[in-house]
Amino acid sequence: MAGKRILSGVQSSGTLHIGNYFGMMRPSLSLQEGNDCYYFIANYHALTQLPDPALLRQRTFDVAVDFLACGLNPDTTVFFRQSDVTEVQELTWILSCLTPVGLLERCHSYKDKLARGMEANHGLFAYPVLMAADILLYNSQLVPVGKDQKQHLEVTRDIAIRFNNRYGDILTVPEAMIQEDVAVIPGLDGQKMSKSYDNTIEIFGEGKPIRQKFMKIITDSTPMEEPKNPDTCNVFALYKLMATPEEQAELRQRYLAGNMGYGHAKQALFDKYSEFFAPMRERRKQLLEKPQLVEDVLQDGAARARKVAQQTLQRVRQAVGLA
Amino acid sequence: MAGKRILSGVQSSGTLHIGNYFGMMRPSLSLQEGNDCYYFIANYHALTQLPDPALLRQRTFDVAVDFLACGLNPDTTVFFRQSDVTEVQELTWILSCLTPVGLLERCHSYKDKLARGMEANHGLFAYPVLMAADILLYNSQLVPVGKDQKQHLEVTRDIAIRFNNRYGDILTVPEAMIQEDVAVIPGLDGQKMSKSYDNTIEIFGEGKPIRQKFMKIITDSTPMEEPKNPDTCNVFALYKLMATPEEQAELRQRYLAGNMGYGHAKQALFDKYSEFFAPMRERRKQLLEKPQLVEDVLQDGAARARKVAQQTLQRVRQAVGLA
Repeated sequence: MAGKRILSGVQSSGTLHIGNYFGMMRPSLSLQEGNDCYYFIANYHALTQLPDPALLRQRTFDVAVDFLACGLNPDTTVFFRQSDVTEVQELTWILSCLTPVGLLERCHSYKDKLARGMEANHGLFAYPVLMAADILLYNSQLVPVGKDQKQHLEVTRDIAIRFNNRYGDILTVPEAMIQEDVAVIPGLDGQKMSKSYDNTIEIFGEGKPIRQKFMKIITDSTPMEEPKNPDTCNVFALYKLMATPEEQAELRQRYLAGNMGYGHAKQALFDKYSEFFAPMRERRKQLLEKPQLVEDVLQDGAARARKVAQQTLQRVRQAVGLA
Repeated sequence: MAGKRILSGVQSSGTLHIGNYFGMMRPSLSLQEGNDCYYFIANYHALTQLPDPALLRQRTFDVAVDFLACGLNPDTTVFFRQSDVTEVQELTWILSCLTPVGLLERCHSYKDKLARGMEANHGLFAYPVLMAADILLYNSQLVPVGKDQKQHLEVTRDIAIRFNNRYGDILTVPEAMIQEDVAVIPGLDGQKMSKSYDNTIEIFGEGKPIRQKFMKIITDSTPMEEPKNPDTCNVFALYKLMATPEEQAELRQRYLAGNMGYGHAKQALFDKYSEFFAPMRERRKQLLEKPQLVEDVLQDGAARARKVAQQTLQRVRQAVGLA
């Protein structure tokens, strides 16, 4: 297959909102075209926060359904649950022996979590080594990372280079694919859409309750009859994400012409949202009716991932003297 | 099977000497009688010191041969290479998420290794979690530990109790079997026999070179004709380890009677040593001629160990929400 081997770990942190979709999911899904993608649901990572077991199971399943509903193509993309390829843990140990403790102590993400009052468990501390193993196990060439994960990818590269220096040219040293201009998606209150601000609009909402949410989006107090500025309006910012250029131009015109209430704009946005996500909602319903299908997809992905994992691990075990 | 499930990890640190045999190996082997022993060669642990790969492989094999030659019974004892049951690494990760970083920072052994100038790699730091996983994976009830490993067993118990408190009664909380009065075996110079003092006598030595070593054992300068004190003599201390009570009494008599040179005592010791280790030397030669037999024993042990490991892990995965 042409293109690059791309690896991405998906957090399973509950109901997806449209900030997740446009900020993280759509860019990931668009990479599928012409590349060789390995996407996994990071349930080993989730464990560092000691979630409720039933919730962890449920969220792992939900995120699989959501990605498949939104266009993940399991025929081309290798899509699997992290814990279904346990080989990653053996590589984590081997890499641990080459990872200076100081490198992990310097990771901002760990320090930040402590600062936010999280219990300093060893899983949190060791997380960058597991992330390195995730990446290196599949010979990944490109890893899409937000700014907060940039340092962890540096750690991965550092570990891979140390390994290769010591044992020969075994591991593929990955490149970061920095997602510079991830669109900031405004939430109901105009702040960045985020669960922590309780200002989200879910992807798969339907009907009255979700329409009411749209109606609550904060706008300015320009009177109905006056012209309005689309470029400072949260409603328009969300509309732009889903509408065609023609539709955007048309609504922009209505903003500038005056005599349009924000209620109209919100209705236009709601209609667009309903239309935009309709096929995904539909696919999701179908998948929820056939959970075994989702499980089969994940099992098949795990089998394909394991094949690559075992090849890498065999080379690594041989190199370090375990085999 | 009656008795207790006993787990012990064997370090693969090169040629065994008689200090290893009487201090560590014989006590371990004697536990086989009436217990259900799981003994493994700790090659994942060895990796924390980044050994040369060929050396790690060789030493792992050698220690297997040595234990089998010295009386490890693979029909009753489950004897395996740590890295052949990779399940231990997944349990290590799961336990890591329940292990406070502070608990690991307080481990003397880690601090000591740093103080001795070893590079602080993350494998060294995480070692007590791997040790906990080794023990808990096999539902071990008793773990023979020297004083230096006592704290690590406390860490294991602590982690197991945390796990059970959170997820239910899943893991067996092990007890330490403190080896209080491990005999201190004197080396050629009268200090404790140890590779670091270069004063060792190997188990499997033969003929002239090894006889010369015995002749170099340091004694006092009591003249030939005078009575000698067996209880302060290194030669007699070693003789006692291998001789019957009658033989001991007889040599003691010769010490006390005078007119016996130390050369005679050394010759008696050498003869006893040659006789004592003869059957083990013989078995070792046979095993070295059939390396595949050793490999088969380890593979069979791994298969038996994996069966227990997978049962434990299945319960653990279910409990934490990975399965």
